[in-house]
Parts: sequence; structure tokens; C-alpha cells
Amino acid sequence: MFVILSYDVKAARVGKARRLVKRYLRPVQRSVFEGFLSEGRLERLKKELRALLDTDEDSVRIYKLQNLQGAETEALGPVPAADSVVL
Amino acid sequence: MFVILSYDVKAARVGKARRLVKRYLRPVQRSVFEGFLSEGRLERLKKELRALLDTDEDSVRIYKLQNLQGAETEALGPVPAADSVVL
Repeated sequence: MFVILSYDVKAARVGKARRLVKRYLRPVQRSVFEGFLSEGRLERLKKELRALLDTDEDSVRIYKLQNLQGAETEALGPVPAADSVVL
Repeated sequence: MFVILSYDVKAARVGKARRLVKRYLRPVQRSVFEGFLSEGRLERLKKELRALLDTDEDSVRIYKLQNLQGAETEALGPVPAADSVVL
């Protein structure tokens, strides 16, 4: 399934959070990542995130798209080099 | 259509950008917004964003979902009060 993950993470933890999420998903903005993940891999990522983050202060949002029909991405401004491969 | 919009905007413009996008979409994180928009409203929002932002420095990412079948949102940590209404 296609996953979009965004986070608001306090500065003290954001470096670690970024390194963690990058092992699963491609960074497309400072706090947005995307890519294809199995349910199992996503559960693992969420478990690792829960262990790292303070969920009183940090917020993570995960959009799971099983069906990419009718889905489209647009970008204004700079995009990562590999951007054109997605959706 | 359902729209997820995220941005990386330089501090000088982020307040104005936030106020602008909030006229169209509901804020769900510091730099992520979502909601239902017509193509026409989205074009208007993009036009206003292009006028406000410096697209050499600022990046905007727009996910357009025509079909919410099989789409799901999960959140870890704090979420806006109206969060449960979406997807």
C-alpha cells in the first residue's frame, strides 16, 4: 500500500525521527515522507516511532492508500530528485 | 476531491501561507492541511500560493485523491479536535 507520513516532532528528537522514518520511506519534504510499505513493515515503523517519540508532544499522521486510482501528486517549488517516479 | 497539502515554507512567509491555506483546508499539523476541494477551488488556492511563495525556496506538495475507497488515516500523538470526522 502507498503511505504518506508526516510528523510534528520537537527539535530534540527530530534528527532521530528522520533517520528512522528514512529507513522505511522516502523523504519528500522536511517532515513528509512517502512510499510503498506492507502492513507488517508499517506496524514495525509505528512501533519504532512510539518507542522514540513523546506522543504528548509529537504528532505523527499516516495516510494509507490501498487504491491509487484517481490519486495524483502535484508539487510547487523544489522537489527531491526522484520525485517523478511516484503516483 | 480529498486534498492533502503539505509545505516547507521559509519563516518569513509561513504565517501568511498558513492563513491562506486555512481559508481552503483544515490544518492537521504545523505544515499539513486536508479537506475536500473542487478542482476550481484548488486551482485558486494554487494561484494564491504561487503569488505568495518563493518557489525557489518554498516547497508545496499536493496529494489529490478522487477515490477514498481503501484510504485511511492514522494518528500518533495530539490531533486537532475535529480530527475524527475525516476519511
